[in-house]
Amino acid sequence: MEKNVLQETQETQKTQETQENKETQSMALNATSLQKFFSPDSIAVIGARNREKKVGGMVFKNLLRGNYKGQLYAVNPKHKTIQGQPCVASVIDIKSPVDLAVIATPAATIPGILVDCGKKGIENILILSAGFSESGDEGKKLEAAILDLAKQYNMRIMGPNCLGIIIPSLNINASFSNIAVHTGQLALVSQSGAICAAILDWAAPKKIGFSSIVSLGNVADIDFGDVLEYLAFDVKTQSILLYIEGVRNARGFMQGLRLAANKKPVIVIKAGRSQQGSVAATTHTGALIGEDDVFDSALKRAGAVRVTTIEQLFTVAQILSQNYRVKGNNLCIITNGGGAGVMAADAVSEYNINLASLDKNTILELDKKLPKFWSHHNPVDILGDATSERYQTALSLCQKDKNVDGLLAILVPVVMSDPHRVAKSVIEIAGNTDKPILTCWMGQQKVQSDRKLFLENNIPSFDTPEKAVEAFSFLTEYHRNQTLLLQVANNGINDIGIHDIHQPSDRSTFSTATISTTTISTAKGIIDLVLSQSRTILTLTESKSLLAAFGIKTTKTLEAHSPTEALKAGEVIGYPLAMKILSPDITHKTECGGVELNIVDSQILLAAYKKIIDSAKEKKPTANILGVTLEPMYIQSNARELMVGVFRDKVFGPVVSFGLGGTLVEVLKDRAVALPPINRLIAKQLIEQTRAAKILGKFRNMPEANRQAIEEVLIQVSTMVCELPEIKEMDINPLIANEKEAIALDVRIVVAK
Amino acid sequence: MEKNVLQETQETQKTQETQENKETQSMALNATSLQKFFSPDSIAVIGARNREKKVGGMVFKNLLRGNYKGQLYAVNPKHKTIQGQPCVASVIDIKSPVDLAVIATPAATIPGILVDCGKKGIENILILSAGFSESGDEGKKLEAAILDLAKQYNMRIMGPNCLGIIIPSLNINASFSNIAVHTGQLALVSQSGAICAAILDWAAPKKIGFSSIVSLGNVADIDFGDVLEYLAFDVKTQSILLYIEGVRNARGFMQGLRLAANKKPVIVIKAGRSQQGSVAATTHTGALIGEDDVFDSALKRAGAVRVTTIEQLFTVAQILSQNYRVKGNNLCIITNGGGAGVMAADAVSEYNINLASLDKNTILELDKKLPKFWSHHNPVDILGDATSERYQTALSLCQKDKNVDGLLAILVPVVMSDPHRVAKSVIEIAGNTDKPILTCWMGQQKVQSDRKLFLENNIPSFDTPEKAVEAFSFLTEYHRNQTLLLQVANNGINDIGIHDIHQPSDRSTFSTATISTTTISTAKGIIDLVLSQSRTILTLTESKSLLAAFGIKTTKTLEAHSPTEALKAGEVIGYPLAMKILSPDITHKTECGGVELNIVDSQILLAAYKKIIDSAKEKKPTANILGVTLEPMYIQSNARELMVGVFRDKVFGPVVSFGLGGTLVEVLKDRAVALPPINRLIAKQLIEQTRAAKILGKFRNMPEANRQAIEEVLIQVSTMVCELPEIKEMDINPLIANEKEAIALDVRIVVAK
Repeated sequence: MEKNVLQETQETQKTQETQENKETQSMALNATSLQKFFSPDSIAVIGARNREKKVGGMVFKNLLRGNYKGQLYAVNPKHKTIQGQPCVASVIDIKSPVDLAVIATPAATIPGILVDCGKKGIENILILSAGFSESGDEGKKLEAAILDLAKQYNMRIMGPNCLGIIIPSLNINASFSNIAVHTGQLALVSQSGAICAAILDWAAPKKIGFSSIVSLGNVADIDFGDVLEYLAFDVKTQSILLYIEGVRNARGFMQGLRLAANKKPVIVIKAGRSQQGSVAATTHTGALIGEDDVFDSALKRAGAVRVTTIEQLFTVAQILSQNYRVKGNNLCIITNGGGAGVMAADAVSEYNINLASLDKNTILELDKKLPKFWSHHNPVDILGDATSERYQTALSLCQKDKNVDGLLAILVPVVMSDPHRVAKSVIEIAGNTDKPILTCWMGQQKVQSDRKLFLENNIPSFDTPEKAVEAFSFLTEYHRNQTLLLQVANNGINDIGIHDIHQPSDRSTFSTATISTTTISTAKGIIDLVLSQSRTILTLTESKSLLAAFGIKTTKTLEAHSPTEALKAGEVIGYPLAMKILSPDITHKTECGGVELNIVDSQILLAAYKKIIDSAKEKKPTANILGVTLEPMYIQSNARELMVGVFRDKVFGPVVSFGLGGTLVEVLKDRAVALPPINRLIAKQLIEQTRAAKILGKFRNMPEANRQAIEEVLIQVSTMVCELPEIKEMDINPLIANEKEAIALDVRIVVAK
Repeated sequence: MEKNVLQETQETQKTQETQENKETQSMALNATSLQKFFSPDSIAVIGARNREKKVGGMVFKNLLRGNYKGQLYAVNPKHKTIQGQPCVASVIDIKSPVDLAVIATPAATIPGILVDCGKKGIENILILSAGFSESGDEGKKLEAAILDLAKQYNMRIMGPNCLGIIIPSLNINASFSNIAVHTGQLALVSQSGAICAAILDWAAPKKIGFSSIVSLGNVADIDFGDVLEYLAFDVKTQSILLYIEGVRNARGFMQGLRLAANKKPVIVIKAGRSQQGSVAATTHTGALIGEDDVFDSALKRAGAVRVTTIEQLFTVAQILSQNYRVKGNNLCIITNGGGAGVMAADAVSEYNINLASLDKNTILELDKKLPKFWSHHNPVDILGDATSERYQTALSLCQKDKNVDGLLAILVPVVMSDPHRVAKSVIEIAGNTDKPILTCWMGQQKVQSDRKLFLENNIPSFDTPEKAVEAFSFLTEYHRNQTLLLQVANNGINDIGIHDIHQPSDRSTFSTATISTTTISTAKGIIDLVLSQSRTILTLTESKSLLAAFGIKTTKTLEAHSPTEALKAGEVIGYPLAMKILSPDITHKTECGGVELNIVDSQILLAAYKKIIDSAKEKKPTANILGVTLEPMYIQSNARELMVGVFRDKVFGPVVSFGLGGTLVEVLKDRAVALPPINRLIAKQLIEQTRAAKILGKFRNMPEANRQAIEEVLIQVSTMVCELPEIKEMDINPLIANEKEAIALDVRIVVAK
């Protein structure tokens, strides 16, 4: 008997926990490599200057005046003193060890300086200077050169072209930002110095505090992955905020992200999520930008939460830091204003969460205690004259309801209401429940002191119902993604979601299904043959054989090299059938008149053969035409047309996609993606994300489709991708699913060495 | 030769302008009917009390202390004085005329009070009291009773169950809100008193001023339409804000809305836009809630702008009041931070506008004047060290570009920037261009004074790129909808979009195509026959005849009442063909095994006949089975499957819908709607809104589909709906379109007397 999903999940979890422990230990060791970067006992500012308007002057001033407790050295061959402090000509002249060198000299001077640093044994280098890969070919060469030096001397480099780092608790401001930063428990890691500056300027008057602020710049060496590994173990950091434009080292990124997100909330803004945005991002950072839905899927798998605006970044950080957690997405809304309830219910639909259906007993209890004309369902409208007692009654009854995962209390400042008394009773209830209670005191003058009161009591508070509902939706997303984080194949966390084509040796450990060596060797045989003929596209027969080797059902395809062979094949397949041109040189068959559908008898078949061959010869005279393929017309009223694909993301490597199939795929854009390996739960979730899911149940008199069969196809395709790195692209379209089976009618596979 | 769209539009516009003038005059007369309501020379507060916590006490206090300049009377039989003022027992006792009576007594006393008001000749009544239709059956009866009295005495009633009205310029606060309201040029009309209160509380500290505030309550008599007609001509009102939960009198609403939106910006929040929200709204207001996309379409046709949050309501009111207008949706972004540019570009995609493609010459000019590493496209990244001169150069070059409709200047407060100097130069440029320049100075501390400076100079200013781009998208939507407002059929503005089935006599004036009387009588003949047989659903043959009468192409359908007739029909139609059960009692043919597709020869045809009849007899033994219908299988590789429908909205009456067709319609949900009458431009826009539009161009080797033929179908369906009020529902699915024609393969029509 097959294991059910729960069992599988539990087992996976166990295996994973062991793995994780091992992993954590080795990570902890690695993480110490950036330890001194984030808590240096001594800092040398190379290029320190007197003029505070220049980068070198400003960073030195920031460290000097910021009351940094460690040793601070000014380095500048042109001066004896800088800002009243002694100055040396080179780091070589410093007698004591230096933990961190901050460099703010012109780009061209930096290789020489790095040699000095290397000789001096400085391991951590922060380069603020611009003039590297962001500024054309010359700069790219220079960046490569400093990277070589870093390797040679075993140095880690942050930047170049970055704002720097700030560690408020250690009074370290090794940046050229002059904005005061409060000490707190948020870490901010940003690829853009400007966005970093905007966030700091925004956060300062709100007294939002940070454990560390890191501007990564050009990411020549130290990447998100490295910093995430450090922050995962940084006790001063409670939540991590990332601003990302493009990821360079996907493997390192995912490794660091999973590690960190497993320990504390990680909230991500990824700019360039639209096509227009990603064109802009490519120009801006020169980073490789993959498909946005793939990035999204990777973030989810890693247990992080993605937001789109800076405001959301802080909202989510705040509610997650306060340890608000939900177990589902059913929200109960309690309001003294019907209109506000309606607006909240609208937002619930928009943010893809649910209005909780209150339990019958809850309704009965509410009926007993609320005035006659309460709304009698969720949103629970307790009417304009609602007292604090009425709020208390409604909240405590609803929070007990098993169908409720979280609550939103809305108050509209009508004359009969006493916002302050209600606020106090909400705070009381919130202290006695483990379900999150969010609040929205609408208006301004009459309610702002109560909003402050909520915040002081660690109760999330918002000024509009939309923002409150949105915040709840992020809580549910965090829960969902953290569950996904546990869905690891039984081979350790390192490799999840990262199947770099350049590292095929890792591949064999990814499989989620037991695959016989025969299967592999059959499959490899087909691919080797294709490659040996210098082809990259498999014929339909080859493609179907490949699928068949992995147990994926396909319709029969027969090849015919003459009219007579076609007639015989027709007898075998049966009418009606479809005929297509067979030629290694013709990919787009329809364009060459190479497809005839719905052939109903032998006479029409012979005519079709002639028509196809003639048309192909005329339209592609140079093509090597081998004959035709024949396959049954799959006319079946219970059939759902689906699509399963494989493509390579520029950043994350192979990706499996699923959605509605047929000829309209480009228009329907019903594509959900997942990074392999895919187990059953991930396959289920992949299907659930699509519109296709809606036609798999009972639909238009059709019985339910066999979902398990579709899941199998997804798992098998994932396995194929893991086992056969040669597969570049695959397009099963349509995959037909009915109540019995899932069967591939057409498939196109592209391979490469 | 056919007129082109431009000609048509121009002519329509002319006709319309004349119509509009006439209309305006008659409206102006009507509008005066609420004149005294909004500027009464004398007010009687019936139910005035001493206790200021009670509604009657509060409203009297608000008027008394608010320094109202007219005559104020307290009416209460139990007192001689109220709040130190003389008090009479009844309005009858007041010697001078009374323009407005404000009633705050218990519901049950109100009919008696209204009789007094009627006798006294008071025409304007504002009822604040609750206890009417919102509170069950008793209340509903009471509300009907007061409405009867209003008719009898020719009184207009606002409310009951409302917050009241506030006219700051006249010092009138005839409401029980105690929030101070500034005088200004915004009118706010809200169906919810609570939302009204929240908006006022929110607006007060921001010093947002109002011309009038109206809370409509239960809308027993005075509705949105009446108030809009008044506000359209109110010189003190520059923009109108509406909060709507459900419309009662759709005709009056649309009439008032069109009139108002033609004269000043009207911005609408319609709560209950989602299904969950509209269930909540129905409970809350008892209003009839139609389909949200129909409401949306009606708003667009009327030239109004719809927003979803209170914050947007004010943002849009502000930028529209400042007379910012755009002519297209191409935005140019100028930024000193690449990351901020990327975020703005993301928002551009999200809000369905365009990043302007800069003209070659603009790029060349920018190249001459900007530093080497500027982004070289839009978003125009002028780099972190951008000076005010550089902003000025970029802005003035880009605003001249003919491909640019509006500009967004973003500044990130990096150290090298001088936010204040840049702000001043942006203000200078903005004064010299008629294209809107929006600004986003990111951050807080360093930029808030500049944001204020922008506002003082009437330049829209936002704290995030997302909000700025969103605001621009509303400007473009306003432009689009105002264009639609001009798209009136040549029969006056009154009837646009409102085809109340109860007023069929209006119908004959709506036609946008010249229809012969023969067509009408043929169509009526078919419908009359169906109705005379007590049927409501037309047979396929009848339905297709109806379409044919209006010039819509259909595939041939033949009826056969015996196997022999079926064979003959098969010869006429040709193979392959489809056969369907013919029975007035069977609607869902597939369920009864009543459909056989792809019949390829006479032998299979005979078998199919038997199978269909047998199956129908077995599954529906009581059905009157007349035989089968036969039609050709329309297998055509260039065919696009579309859908054209008609349904009746609960509020707005008949609606035409369009989208992707086929069996997946429910899943694809590709539905755009338009209220008839539909002319060619509206038909074009209707098509453009759908995903279906994407497959009508060159697609998968298919030549472009004949869009004009599809437009004709939409126009003809609109005409049918206008001419034949009996049509309740129509579902043409699929409508097949190819490069030659648009042809209806299947259609279902439901009629009613």
